[in-house]
Amino acid sequence: MSYLFKNISIITMDADKPKVILSDLLIEGSKISKIDNEIPKSAHKVIEGKNLLVMPGFINTHAHVSMSLLRGYGDDLELFKWLSDRIWPFESKLTKNDVYIGAKLGIAEMLLSGTTTFLDMYQDMEMVGKACQEAGIRCHISRGTIFTGVEKKDNEALIQLEELIDKFHDYDDGRIKVLAGPHAVYTNNTAFLKAQLEIANRRNIGINIHVSETKKENEDSLLIKGKTPIAYLEDIGVLDAPYVVAAHMVYLNDEDQEIAKNKKVGIAHNPKSNLKLGSGIANIQQYVNKGINVGIGTDGAASNNNMDMLSELQYASLLQKGLNLDATALNAYETLKMATIEGAKVLNISDSVGMLKEGYDADLIMFDMNQPHYYPIENSHISKIAYSAKSSDIVLTMVKGKPLMINRELKTIDLEKTYKEVSEIIERVYKKND
Amino acid sequence: MSYLFKNISIITMDADKPKVILSDLLIEGSKISKIDNEIPKSAHKVIEGKNLLVMPGFINTHAHVSMSLLRGYGDDLELFKWLSDRIWPFESKLTKNDVYIGAKLGIAEMLLSGTTTFLDMYQDMEMVGKACQEAGIRCHISRGTIFTGVEKKDNEALIQLEELIDKFHDYDDGRIKVLAGPHAVYTNNTAFLKAQLEIANRRNIGINIHVSETKKENEDSLLIKGKTPIAYLEDIGVLDAPYVVAAHMVYLNDEDQEIAKNKKVGIAHNPKSNLKLGSGIANIQQYVNKGINVGIGTDGAASNNNMDMLSELQYASLLQKGLNLDATALNAYETLKMATIEGAKVLNISDSVGMLKEGYDADLIMFDMNQPHYYPIENSHISKIAYSAKSSDIVLTMVKGKPLMINRELKTIDLEKTYKEVSEIIERVYKKND
Repeated sequence: MSYLFKNISIITMDADKPKVILSDLLIEGSKISKIDNEIPKSAHKVIEGKNLLVMPGFINTHAHVSMSLLRGYGDDLELFKWLSDRIWPFESKLTKNDVYIGAKLGIAEMLLSGTTTFLDMYQDMEMVGKACQEAGIRCHISRGTIFTGVEKKDNEALIQLEELIDKFHDYDDGRIKVLAGPHAVYTNNTAFLKAQLEIANRRNIGINIHVSETKKENEDSLLIKGKTPIAYLEDIGVLDAPYVVAAHMVYLNDEDQEIAKNKKVGIAHNPKSNLKLGSGIANIQQYVNKGINVGIGTDGAASNNNMDMLSELQYASLLQKGLNLDATALNAYETLKMATIEGAKVLNISDSVGMLKEGYDADLIMFDMNQPHYYPIENSHISKIAYSAKSSDIVLTMVKGKPLMINRELKTIDLEKTYKEVSEIIERVYKKND
Repeated sequence: MSYLFKNISIITMDADKPKVILSDLLIEGSKISKIDNEIPKSAHKVIEGKNLLVMPGFINTHAHVSMSLLRGYGDDLELFKWLSDRIWPFESKLTKNDVYIGAKLGIAEMLLSGTTTFLDMYQDMEMVGKACQEAGIRCHISRGTIFTGVEKKDNEALIQLEELIDKFHDYDDGRIKVLAGPHAVYTNNTAFLKAQLEIANRRNIGINIHVSETKKENEDSLLIKGKTPIAYLEDIGVLDAPYVVAAHMVYLNDEDQEIAKNKKVGIAHNPKSNLKLGSGIANIQQYVNKGINVGIGTDGAASNNNMDMLSELQYASLLQKGLNLDATALNAYETLKMATIEGAKVLNISDSVGMLKEGYDADLIMFDMNQPHYYPIENSHISKIAYSAKSSDIVLTMVKGKPLMINRELKTIDLEKTYKEVSEIIERVYKKND
């Protein structure tokens, strides 16, 4: 199929400075083949661009998509109570198929809010991989591991990681990637981290890990290891993996920031989850000033409570201004970069995704600006997307040239069926609770 | 007209603790006449409640609605540069009719995002009053004043306030109210504040004023007056007006908080604007713990950049958790209260608005929960509205029993016409700039 957007506003995200062009854009197969004025109308489908805007799809650098099943199940609770009274008991009752249904629900939400790529960590990741294969979204999946001390179980986790790589890595021309996913420093020991590092190095894949999410995590690490989590990871060689995505990174001292920069660690910043769980506010402006690569992530819907990257990026920007008492902090364009091309750099795919550029994969979203919150329509489109837009304005989500959502209708997920399946899970799990 | 909601989820907001009921709700004329099971289907219009939820409409306690015309015109700028290079030059070119068109644009956005009442401050407020008369929204309008030192001009401002009261106060059975609107302590002198206080006392109206929006405002006040702004207002008697709405209140020391509590000052908390302008984050949880009455406001769309109370209340809650490193801070229900009944208290109308209760005015909104971000549908509806809902899910906005928005269509504002009028203003103002 080919798609031609005529005379449409485009935020290409391929420039250092804010840039919006009015142009035609041609998609052939899975790629953007031409961005130019007056492309002849030879495509299968022509979209006239009045009041419409296209930009790269959002890249969600940190998610636990199947946790959509736990949305609204344990709010306003202190972190440990939340985990021990709500999350863990619930999760212990989930079957493989539940993880698959939860992934479908979460992917549906992401496609409706303009996410074209996400990085996920959870258990039973082959079920998330399956959901992504079917849904057509671009996803990077990591097998979350927690060291149990039970040799058979821990070995199995490593075997599952290798199987995950065998089955999914580079599926559909790279649409799916696999990463190792040690959950965190405090839930893994050195040997287990090194075992996962060995696999990452041997198979040439990345590592996805939670780092410095809370003050307590840092304090405990200093007490037990004499080092901050990121310094410890450097020490044992984990940061020398092909690439590392570190989620949260709320508490980084100057030395930690130097390490992140020198080791090219990509940060997945989760502003809403960090607020909601009472973790704190990361000083992202500082990280960016130092040249650290930062993307944005939603975390799971159990601690957010949605997976809406547009809302997330708006929080990212506004929080930096408020935290630093500086209205110029993390401006509109910098923030859009984080949600697109910088996220692609974090995920190591910026050579083909994250910008609208000839030869790049056609991962894009389209906004209908025919809503009061876009007016005066004459003012900056970049401001509009960063500060005023709502995800419900997105009328097209396309991955690799394939429309997965058109006019708020999903093309690859049966929502009514998914809702029913979710209700069946909830009924079963609650019954088990009784 | 009468409307009957059958078997619908209702967040009544009339209880101290979270409460959601499944019931029928009958509206006759402008009032809620009955909330009960099995009300006979005798109404003119019956709405079947499957997957729908009603709650009181949002109360926006601080807005400058006509500033919608300045949306996206000056982002990411330091406050004084923003005012002097962008806002003031633009505003100096606005005609009375422009203020009217800007108000229509802002009201359209508010009705589409579930706001049924707002408190506004601006110039040419009779034009905002006119827009509200026509649109059917509930609004409280205050004539913003800045002391100029030009006697004729300052006197005129006081005369305009009295005229505004004569023309609009208690219009349509109290749907419109008028307040005095001294812009701030630092833009008014003592005599001018007292003159407005005299009018407020004589006419039995409230006072709406910006207080302690920035650190600098407080520092300057301490330097010049030897007191914080709120202590100074207490000192000169302003806090003894019939009621006082103080917007922002970001920086309050313990003494200030005592004053606010003892004098029953209502706070209009503007989380997004306070972030975006780099003003800071108010510790609202502290205020609430002390028993101070706090509502939520969007401020103008020039510093937000939208007027979406649902987004605003989500920021309000999450920010308190992040600021206080406490996931239990400002929980879902407390936050919904702020956006409804607590806001009604701030505006001195909680005897008829802010809850769904027999005899109360039928100011309500309805959510369609048939979206992935509401699932699992079985979990707390209060959590869903506070943390997951999007304003685009609102399918009915009703004020005094009159539907002003149904299925995302506005009933009292011609959007296409308004867009055209806005564009004409922008074209004219930009031409003047050349």
